[in-house]
Amino acid sequence: MQKNTDLTPRHEARMVQLVFPSDTNQYGVLFGGIAIAWMDQAAYVCAARWCRRKAVTAHIDAVDFRRSVPVGATVELIARLMSTGRTSMRMEVEMWAEVLDAEEGPYQVVRGEFVMVALGDDNRPTPVPPFPPQDHSSTTKSNSR
Amino acid sequence: MQKNTDLTPRHEARMVQLVFPSDTNQYGVLFGGIAIAWMDQAAYVCAARWCRRKAVTAHIDAVDFRRSVPVGATVELIARLMSTGRTSMRMEVEMWAEVLDAEEGPYQVVRGEFVMVALGDDNRPTPVPPFPPQDHSSTTKSNSR
Amino acid sequence: MQKNTDLTPRHEARMVQLVFPSDTNQYGVLFGGIAIAWMDQAAYVCAARWCRRKAVTAHIDAVDFRRSVPVGATVELIARLMSTGRTSMRMEVEMWAEVLDAEEGPYQVVRGEFVMVALGDDNRPTPVPPFPPQDHSSTTKSNSR
Amino acid sequence: MQKNTDLTPRHEARMVQLVFPSDTNQYGVLFGGIAIAWMDQAAYVCAARWCRRKAVTAHIDAVDFRRSVPVGATVELIARLMSTGRTSMRMEVEMWAEVLDAEEGPYQVVRGEFVMVALGDDNRPTPVPPFPPQDHSSTTKSNSR
Amino acid sequence: MQKNTDLTPRHEARMVQLVFPSDTNQYGVLFGGIAIAWMDQAAYVCAARWCRRKAVTAHIDAVDFRRSVPVGATVELIARLMSTGRTSMRMEVEMWAEVLDAEEGPYQVVRGEFVMVALGDDNRPTPVPPFPPQDHSSTTKSNSR
Amino acid sequence: MQKNTDLTPRHEARMVQLVFPSDTNQYGVLFGGIAIAWMDQAAYVCAARWCRRKAVTAHIDAVDFRRSVPVGATVELIARLMSTGRTSMRMEVEMWAEVLDAEEGPYQVVRGEFVMVALGDDNRPTPVPPFPPQDHSSTTKSNSR
Repeated sequence: MQKNTDLTPRHEARMVQLVFPSDTNQYGVLFGGIAIAWMDQAAYVCAARWCRRKAVTAHIDAVDFRRSVPVGATVELIARLMSTGRTSMRMEVEMWAEVLDAEEGPYQVVRGEFVMVALGDDNRPTPVPPFPPQDHSSTTKSNSR
Repeated sequence: MQKNTDLTPRHEARMVQLVFPSDTNQYGVLFGGIAIAWMDQAAYVCAARWCRRKAVTAHIDAVDFRRSVPVGATVELIARLMSTGRTSMRMEVEMWAEVLDAEEGPYQVVRGEFVMVALGDDNRPTPVPPFPPQDHSSTTKSNSR
Repeated sequence: MQKNTDLTPRHEARMVQLVFPSDTNQYGVLFGGIAIAWMDQAAYVCAARWCRRKAVTAHIDAVDFRRSVPVGATVELIARLMSTGRTSMRMEVEMWAEVLDAEEGPYQVVRGEFVMVALGDDNRPTPVPPFPPQDHSSTTKSNSR
Repeated sequence: MQKNTDLTPRHEARMVQLVFPSDTNQYGVLFGGIAIAWMDQAAYVCAARWCRRKAVTAHIDAVDFRRSVPVGATVELIARLMSTGRTSMRMEVEMWAEVLDAEEGPYQVVRGEFVMVALGDDNRPTPVPPFPPQDHSSTTKSNSR
Repeated sequence: MQKNTDLTPRHEARMVQLVFPSDTNQYGVLFGGIAIAWMDQAAYVCAARWCRRKAVTAHIDAVDFRRSVPVGATVELIARLMSTGRTSMRMEVEMWAEVLDAEEGPYQVVRGEFVMVALGDDNRPTPVPPFPPQDHSSTTKSNSR
Repeated sequence: MQKNTDLTPRHEARMVQLVFPSDTNQYGVLFGGIAIAWMDQAAYVCAARWCRRKAVTAHIDAVDFRRSVPVGATVELIARLMSTGRTSMRMEVEMWAEVLDAEEGPYQVVRGEFVMVALGDDNRPTPVPPFPPQDHSSTTKSNSR
């Protein structure tokens, strides 16, 4: 039976998406706006897993689009916590594409940075656990991955 | 830099989705039809990664819905190859839900089995690599993950 | 003026859908996941019309995909009540496709079985009227449609 | 086995839709724009079944919205051919709503008229079979309903 | 810094949309149902800006489709208040298309008339400011555009 | 009759959107990912109108989210060309929200910068007209707005 520990680690979130015709732009490739929306979701999952709180996007920067993605590709979004402020979490989000019925391996499509803020029940910024973690046991656990 | 080996293993596919209001049914929880559509996508990714071919759904059975999923939860879909026929792949697909800003851990929502068939360039069934793998090198490769 | 009796009978539900580009998968034909979602909706309508209650999907099996459906086709979903348990309803759901501007007649695309459970106001399973109906008056009512 | 004759008659088309949260407007009821889009689809199916050709919307008028539709209702769209011109088909389209877990019967939500034009392979207007049909046998068939 | 006065005038609303593959019908051009849904949104924005109230569509007529719109075009919807009744607002809505990477200028796709009714907090029709406005200063402002 | 000159100026693009329930995130307000997707569309329209070419997003930065947007609000996206490189266009994109049936005026929700690259028929970067324009007449026209 599936256990908690089978799920992806807490300071990282991965999402796989299939690129469908309804995700394409007028040029028949993945619409950049959808790519960013998926990155935003991955950042949210990563942030919310870390702080176990409501989290909202406050800032996005350094988003670079490198290649386009054809219909039928799978994309993998990988959001990783980079650092925390008192109430904010900065994450790097990458998107990799793979054309499943081709021989070519995955290639990077876009990467960017997202800052999310944790909100308390009163919808005001609330402190988050620091990252990288400052106690021994967590560091060890983190290194062992 | 990200390498191939960072991606999830070839006989398994994982997808994380956020449950948005647009994914809900008339009762305000995740619509079962969308759950099945996501399971079908996860099965496809798993199958296509295994056979590196076009793959289509041929059969679905043993789908059991256990609990409902509220808006705002994340769900993780896990498709795992169970066995292969000459041209077909049987996969188990599970969906787990987690309410990120709650203390409760993930719980299983639904599981089912999907059979996909690999198609060649002529759109006719085409052989797939056997699973579990039968030669030494593949087994080793599989174990090393 | 339109009357109740013009609507389709109570132990059957029919839905017609047009296959749009946004319903297609990476191969340009109707995405199987959307087909299942539509079947689930047809099953729900059939179940809810029978029990006049909230109804949720509990189980899906024996889903067989036979042919693919091109963009521009219409599909007709037909859900028919097969039998009832104390609180559950088993339905057969078929999907037929027709290419409207062609001469060819409709063909079956997929068929499967769905079990739905009626829920009371407390969200717990609640009894459903038996099918096929067992008392005289119901039979008569059913025949008169 | 299902036969052609089980499908709805050729000068009428019916579609059932479930009203989902993603179909609602800012007031939480069915968005009028989606209602019209569904009516347009029903008119198209009716027109294309009659002329067995490509058909496009040329004109819409006399659309009257009477009541709103809550989430969770089913709606039935009924498009009926009213008359034909040389290359055009005028249809009446009604939409009825029913709240499945309530006792109240279906009520009319909106009705309107749509004119569609048949197009030939050259994308130019092309003649359609006259309606009402002018030979005896067809009239009889039509009357028998 | 942006000020209120930079926004479009109060008796007119403009919306620009990009035509994506997910907006197309089975012929690969903008689906008429989506065109009408966008027109309905533009009419709503125009009406709500005028009456500063909840507003719902009551009637649509005189909708004429003139040309089709390819994927990748931008469309501009222009809703203009034509006249008011005691509680209703009649608007003309036009849709213009432009293929951005072509030399050809914008062309009209469809135009129609929408009647919206203002609703008070009790969801009953409520009076709207008259149009054209009847005092001097407003008339002058309106003429000067 | 509508003329070209009625459309918005060439170095600016405006889009109005209504916030529907299907645009919301798990907190019931406009999903940030959709906001970014809309901003990307507005940037595209602005860029393509300027260069009259295919244009793709290359870079996004300085995106700051300031306030949230409730269902039922209208948002106006305003993309303005800031400067050009040889083949690239940098635009500022703002999103303003307005709750139509309230007395409060529009407020800024988010703003960011998008860099788009013009592509020629060979899908390689191609020169764009400089901005601000360098000849007298255009400068004058631009200043007069």
